[in-house]
Amino acid sequence: MFEDAELGHTLSKEKFDRRIAAVRNALLDAQYALLESRGASVVVLMTGVEGAGRSETANALMSWLDPRHVEVNGLADPSDEEQERPRFWRFWRALPSRGKIGFFFGSWYNYPVLRSSLGRKRQWGKLDRRISEINRFEQMLANEHTLVLKFWFHLSRKALRKRQRELKKHKATRWRVTARDRRFLKHYDDFREVAEHLLRETSQAHAPWLIVEGSDRRYREMFVAGELLEALKARLAAPETKAPLPATPTPSSSVDRNRTVLAALDLTKKLTKDEYEDELERAQGALAMLSRHKRFKDHSVILVFEGNDAAGKGGAIRRVAGAFDSRMVRVIPIAAPTDEEKLHPYLWRFWRHLPRRNNIVIFDRSWYGRVLVERVERFCAAGDWQRAYAEIDDFEEEMTGHGIVVAKFWLATSKEEQLKRFKERERVSFKHYKITPDDWRNRKKWDAYAQAVCDMVARTSTKEAPWTLVEANDKYYARIKVLKTVRKRIEEALE
Amino acid sequence: MFEDAELGHTLSKEKFDRRIAAVRNALLDAQYALLESRGASVVVLMTGVEGAGRSETANALMSWLDPRHVEVNGLADPSDEEQERPRFWRFWRALPSRGKIGFFFGSWYNYPVLRSSLGRKRQWGKLDRRISEINRFEQMLANEHTLVLKFWFHLSRKALRKRQRELKKHKATRWRVTARDRRFLKHYDDFREVAEHLLRETSQAHAPWLIVEGSDRRYREMFVAGELLEALKARLAAPETKAPLPATPTPSSSVDRNRTVLAALDLTKKLTKDEYEDELERAQGALAMLSRHKRFKDHSVILVFEGNDAAGKGGAIRRVAGAFDSRMVRVIPIAAPTDEEKLHPYLWRFWRHLPRRNNIVIFDRSWYGRVLVERVERFCAAGDWQRAYAEIDDFEEEMTGHGIVVAKFWLATSKEEQLKRFKERERVSFKHYKITPDDWRNRKKWDAYAQAVCDMVARTSTKEAPWTLVEANDKYYARIKVLKTVRKRIEEALE
Repeated sequence: MFEDAELGHTLSKEKFDRRIAAVRNALLDAQYALLESRGASVVVLMTGVEGAGRSETANALMSWLDPRHVEVNGLADPSDEEQERPRFWRFWRALPSRGKIGFFFGSWYNYPVLRSSLGRKRQWGKLDRRISEINRFEQMLANEHTLVLKFWFHLSRKALRKRQRELKKHKATRWRVTARDRRFLKHYDDFREVAEHLLRETSQAHAPWLIVEGSDRRYREMFVAGELLEALKARLAAPETKAPLPATPTPSSSVDRNRTVLAALDLTKKLTKDEYEDELERAQGALAMLSRHKRFKDHSVILVFEGNDAAGKGGAIRRVAGAFDSRMVRVIPIAAPTDEEKLHPYLWRFWRHLPRRNNIVIFDRSWYGRVLVERVERFCAAGDWQRAYAEIDDFEEEMTGHGIVVAKFWLATSKEEQLKRFKERERVSFKHYKITPDDWRNRKKWDAYAQAVCDMVARTSTKEAPWTLVEANDKYYARIKVLKTVRKRIEEALE
Repeated sequence: MFEDAELGHTLSKEKFDRRIAAVRNALLDAQYALLESRGASVVVLMTGVEGAGRSETANALMSWLDPRHVEVNGLADPSDEEQERPRFWRFWRALPSRGKIGFFFGSWYNYPVLRSSLGRKRQWGKLDRRISEINRFEQMLANEHTLVLKFWFHLSRKALRKRQRELKKHKATRWRVTARDRRFLKHYDDFREVAEHLLRETSQAHAPWLIVEGSDRRYREMFVAGELLEALKARLAAPETKAPLPATPTPSSSVDRNRTVLAALDLTKKLTKDEYEDELERAQGALAMLSRHKRFKDHSVILVFEGNDAAGKGGAIRRVAGAFDSRMVRVIPIAAPTDEEKLHPYLWRFWRHLPRRNNIVIFDRSWYGRVLVERVERFCAAGDWQRAYAEIDDFEEEMTGHGIVVAKFWLATSKEEQLKRFKERERVSFKHYKITPDDWRNRKKWDAYAQAVCDMVARTSTKEAPWTLVEANDKYYARIKVLKTVRKRIEEALE
């Protein structure tokens, strides 16, 4: 794999000088065309062997490009705010918006490579799990208008040793060889073995690895600039070449309309007002106590509320939020995306709201909009909502893998009950804001929505992040079921 | 000051129950009206004596309001990302957008009150400086469509002691009395003295203190709900009642056009290409070394670039950015605000980009747009740009007070030189994107801009955050002057 990058590629000063002006101009032109079209964001990973010239190359590129539209992300040690979120949070946070270019030093490759090679017992199984996460993440990026370029800066062991010796010779450069560099040299062979495996397994058409021989400054700078330029030009010429969808079958329509998870709900379930008040107090009290539990400080909670229009999401959310100290809870109502959000991958606007530890975030509607309203109303292409199931699964796995308690609720009413509530909302003045023409329009597509809900539940209900279908014709019953479920989920996590 | 709040106000269950339904409905109505109008954001401070029922009251309000449009900010200990920014960063970060309500527990009052009263030697001088900062901050909020309500929850020493005793009596509530609470009781009289002074000095028409007697749950909840409701209703009824401008004189127009700081520049200054290349290498090298200095890790750097159109800001920025490791630098081009930014106070979109320590942020255009283009083109009311001088001053004082190195550059060309560059831009294809009809339009207002620049420099050039006027008819000269100035500023900070 690294053979070509150990041949001793160099570029003479003469050749470099002859070419560079044209490359720089073309790079600038491509950058402005990208900015104008907003067709894609560009993620450039700068990774590989320490000391193979990554930062020098990035510095050179930065001086050739217009730095106002480039973001360079060091991403060394995570801050405490980053540590309290799932691992990918800091990368999501740093994703450039469309039109911009982001260079990443620390990236999703650092941890698995270094962990697996330096000092520790190698764990191939764990590494392979990381690899498949990474592949899915990059696939998602590619599908979400992101051009991913991955540069691996290579130096042979010999070249690396030579470089360190030379730096150590001179007083002015001695400081540049750190203890970490020396340790790295010692473990070079392990590192190389892991890297080969990793690169082979993560090289994909939509996110290729480009191996750069790092020993000659002019060669590596020209190489990276040239590859970036070609990739930009290709993208600008054919902006719509999306990575083909992985072969997932389209969600199967249930053949028998009367045997769905929704149809199986017993919507006559109800509670009397007395039962409700009694249970409400008990359930809220229990949640309050749980949130003060010592171990709760290590967790956060994410609750997702979806449901038919007028199913009572707002009321249920208030009862859950009211159980906790208000300083711990934030309710995020999901409406139309802002212009910043539109310039990022679909899930970005949800990632940004993930809570710190000891906090609860309640989503009033959520990322499931993709496979519900966007599917039914055809706001996105079929391919987009079909791949969303897997992307959502990865998203939630990131959460649960980080110890976040996840619970998802679908509040289901009957079509008749909905009609009754719509009419009441139109009648009662202070509920008027709650009913819009959209609601009536959605109602006409009741069956299509029901189908989408069944597919969603079938494909995204997991042990760690299960869906709870809530019989919501009776608001009292629904609220208590929600509260009890949240309680159970948190109790399980604290055990 | 607290006499009224020690009278033992209570509210019977009967009265509370009779009123609360109406208050809740009215609150909800007002909240939705606020959300619809987007006329103001609402900042509610919940502060005062520990144990006087702040969080219970917030919890109650949260269950009466629609929690989807309320954000409760605990703001206890700052995170490391917060500690690396100026003190007010975390409050700016938490400001609700227009249409929303934000409750603040930790607020800009915590630090001065507690520091000045608990345990430490009291420093009245310092406290008074904080007080005037706070008053200016709240004045700015009021002017920027923010309704500020400050609740001070009060308990007399006797009532507080009684409350702690009662809590300690029962096993179920004993945990609620912390060491901090006991310490607080011990220092109660000091605290009260400081608080009286603070409240007196920070009570303003546009940000009044409302003192709540905290001993009776129903009384305090009804009090806070009632005051919030009245304030919302008043605001909705008269959305445009802005706080009157403090009596700052309008910037004086310079009587003699030929004796301004701009006219005094010697625009014939220039460097030869050889001199430039020589100086460039030296200056960039010096900056690179400074950025690796041990003490640099404790600082961050903010550079502001303003100037005539086509004065060469971009080129100068590239030379500065290129001096540093690209991972440390971010260039922020200031264009039209995003929709999220428009829903926040004017300076919010600049605050959000303040760097962490050991980082450099370069603003390509900046908050000075308020007193330049917005003033000249009348994009904002005269009062808005007039008060901006003081607001900007406070903003930059926050930076420099935190150890941030601030340097501001005005790149000045002659009118003739600008014309030459405009024409060249139109001629050269790859510079074409740089020239727009706006540029020609702005040029027609040359004198008005010159006036605005002189006023700006006169009013916002401070010892800690000085303006450097750069003779920019010769690009080489300009870039070197910028680089040398940045170097000098950083050197001074590291000394």
